[in-house]
Amino acid sequence: MKNLQGIVFDLYGTLFDVNSVASACNAMFPGRGVELSMLWRQKQLEYTWLRSLMEKFWSFESATYGALEHACARLGMKPTAQQLEVLCDEYFTLKPFMEVPATLRALSGLKIPLAILSNGSPTSIGTVVKNAGLTDEFAHLLSVDAVRVYKPSPKVYELAEHAFACRREALLFVSSNGWDVTGAGHFGFPTCWVNRAGAPFESMGYEPNDVISGLDGLLTVLRKYV
Amino acid sequence: MKNLQGIVFDLYGTLFDVNSVASACNAMFPGRGVELSMLWRQKQLEYTWLRSLMEKFWSFESATYGALEHACARLGMKPTAQQLEVLCDEYFTLKPFMEVPATLRALSGLKIPLAILSNGSPTSIGTVVKNAGLTDEFAHLLSVDAVRVYKPSPKVYELAEHAFACRREALLFVSSNGWDVTGAGHFGFPTCWVNRAGAPFESMGYEPNDVISGLDGLLTVLRKYV
Repeated sequence: MKNLQGIVFDLYGTLFDVNSVASACNAMFPGRGVELSMLWRQKQLEYTWLRSLMEKFWSFESATYGALEHACARLGMKPTAQQLEVLCDEYFTLKPFMEVPATLRALSGLKIPLAILSNGSPTSIGTVVKNAGLTDEFAHLLSVDAVRVYKPSPKVYELAEHAFACRREALLFVSSNGWDVTGAGHFGFPTCWVNRAGAPFESMGYEPNDVISGLDGLLTVLRKYV
Repeated sequence: MKNLQGIVFDLYGTLFDVNSVASACNAMFPGRGVELSMLWRQKQLEYTWLRSLMEKFWSFESATYGALEHACARLGMKPTAQQLEVLCDEYFTLKPFMEVPATLRALSGLKIPLAILSNGSPTSIGTVVKNAGLTDEFAHLLSVDAVRVYKPSPKVYELAEHAFACRREALLFVSSNGWDVTGAGHFGFPTCWVNRAGAPFESMGYEPNDVISGLDGLLTVLRKYV
């Protein structure tokens, strides 16, 4: 495929490292940070999927708060409401993975328009991208809020198609989340899976077009698209 | 609320014990049965939610097979296709929880029509109910297959409303799955959560109307409905 019109990135876990949340959890619950942050992330995703299927959308911040509250209860932890807020605020101070800023700048140098398409609210997305000094690298910052349903609904992927005003086959979708890659692939985007952990891909009847172990691998993958 | 028109039960984990799958997993992968069966069940649910959100329905058997395949890969196990089939077939031989047959018969004796509303295929539901000798206790065996989307979509809960041909407020929904209770409650059913494990409920902005620790507790709960 040639004539690439743009690249669409997932945010959490793809461009920005959600593992840093584990450190904050560990500072609050010594020795239990990894356990808590893993269950929290799992429940956060579940709550976005479940509330979407129920057709009862709620904000990313509400899903994040509810997921943390439940994860703490499951693990026998009893945080105060203020402690829950402190941990949730970590989502506003996430850092990009090490190789991300240089890779995005290299892509911008190639004149390929870039977008973020994220489950986060417009505020969440805007804040982390601004804090990392990356706002100027993106043509579009797209939030699910506009359609009030979460990934992997096709309504979300359509947001990118509409923003770029081009056929979906001309947009490369990049995510570290296997279920997100699968949704984007079923939708019709060419896909690239960022597999930093060397994990097996999901078994949902779809395989990504390319697999890279860090975002910088994208510069090689692009040779077949431009 | 009086004038109850029927009771709608979830199948897997509510009437029938999915933990027996762990024994089969353990026989195949000694010492790792619990770990495998837990991840398998988690992925099975995820795959039903995700494929529903993608608007790409696939059968319960496909979701179950894909989930097992992925769970094995994640845990570094390398089963043959035949071994995967053997484990998946466990879903056809599930046993009801100990107190379930007597409770269902007591409810039938009260002339309350009963239904199963399940993610399983019509074949899966029919097989386990028949094997347990419980077919005659139910007025309706309802599968998501009819609407090609999984719980907790409101389209699934509507199946029960249509089968009983009554207002949703007159049907008591009973499930051990907190997310299922939440979906049914958001839909408008009165709900009863079967919490055999003494777990905390999900934090998705809904609380069940009643909580019982085994299905026999339903006979007490019913006093306010009939």
